[in-house]
Amino acid sequence: MSHSKQFTLYTHKSGPNGWKVAFVLKELGLTYESIYLDFQNNEHKAPEFTKYNPNGRIPALIDHHNNDFVVWESNAIVLYLTEKYDTAHRISASTFEDKTLELQWLFFQASGQGPYFGQARWFADLHPERVPSAIERYQKETRRVLGVLDGVLSKQEWLVGDKYTIADITFIPWNNSAFNTILADVEGVNIEKDFPFVYAWHQKLMAKDVVKSAWAERAALIAQ
Amino acid sequence: MSHSKQFTLYTHKSGPNGWKVAFVLKELGLTYESIYLDFQNNEHKAPEFTKYNPNGRIPALIDHHNNDFVVWESNAIVLYLTEKYDTAHRISASTFEDKTLELQWLFFQASGQGPYFGQARWFADLHPERVPSAIERYQKETRRVLGVLDGVLSKQEWLVGDKYTIADITFIPWNNSAFNTILADVEGVNIEKDFPFVYAWHQKLMAKDVVKSAWAERAALIAQ
Repeated sequence: MSHSKQFTLYTHKSGPNGWKVAFVLKELGLTYESIYLDFQNNEHKAPEFTKYNPNGRIPALIDHHNNDFVVWESNAIVLYLTEKYDTAHRISASTFEDKTLELQWLFFQASGQGPYFGQARWFADLHPERVPSAIERYQKETRRVLGVLDGVLSKQEWLVGDKYTIADITFIPWNNSAFNTILADVEGVNIEKDFPFVYAWHQKLMAKDVVKSAWAERAALIAQ
Repeated sequence: MSHSKQFTLYTHKSGPNGWKVAFVLKELGLTYESIYLDFQNNEHKAPEFTKYNPNGRIPALIDHHNNDFVVWESNAIVLYLTEKYDTAHRISASTFEDKTLELQWLFFQASGQGPYFGQARWFADLHPERVPSAIERYQKETRRVLGVLDGVLSKQEWLVGDKYTIADITFIPWNNSAFNTILADVEGVNIEKDFPFVYAWHQKLMAKDVVKSAWAERAALIAQ
């Protein structure tokens, strides 16, 4: 490698999934070099990258302290990192049952939040034709998912084990999108009023030192 | 409980995600009682069920041999079952690195296959208006995902660790949908020819005793 850090992180300047991994690497104090792929130039579909991730999506992580072990899928990466490098369980569940609930929320994030919030953005910004019924479908699903989280967070401060863990961290980027973009101009939606517990939880997450610093890094990269 | 089995599985007669759990319970020889929720009557949104799964989706599992521990999200359930009851690693990875790759494929299944194949079915069958550009989008993504799997399976027989695991099992129901419904009548698509390695892998999976028996059970339930 051309750098001396422990990890190489293939990621993207603005896309949500790479930043989940960055948050966790920073929380664990691990050193990494980010390689930001240029989607305009199809770098994520080039053989130099797909040899690591045949799915052609970011993020992918290489651990140079573990025989250059490669893993992709952001939530699998996050679990790899905490299982191997968070043995004190600072930001991860410690009992078997709590680990199962952590997995449950990580799968809900990966299958219930990410793809549907992503389709909301797609139909609003990128689809070749304007399809109001599709935009409405995914805005509605975004609200439903926030409603599920709000119900749970009305009874507990964090998703798993009464503490801040990767289960909470992984929801950050797409919830940012929901608040600032997907639902920002939807008539009749008021995030703070409609989802008070999600709103408060999200503010607490955004105020975490590593999240704040990573998010500022992201803003600077986007502004370049 | 009104039954003496180890588990109660809240599931659905035809939906894909409950059957993944059934395959694994059967593979591990565990006893369970299925409760099939009636979506027409909104049983998945009723408090009797959402007290177990606030997301209002199937499946959810209760383990009566572990203080009625409740877990939802099919792939988290599958991991709970193998971690606790497949200590011989008959259908699950055994080394730390293989477990990480198993997670990687489970997240790809949950976030890359399920939601997109599901949207393909939604826009083909259930969306209130016909949107050819949306149908096309998700048929295309279905083919892309099958292409990713095909590339990997051209070089190895199973997804993880040279053996049949939950990483393979969880892809079964939605691949059935892709083959028999989503892509069945798409012009220019020939599954066997376009995705020969996925096709052969899927046939091997469908020929497994427990998969065959569960799938026959499903057919009988649907025919009722």
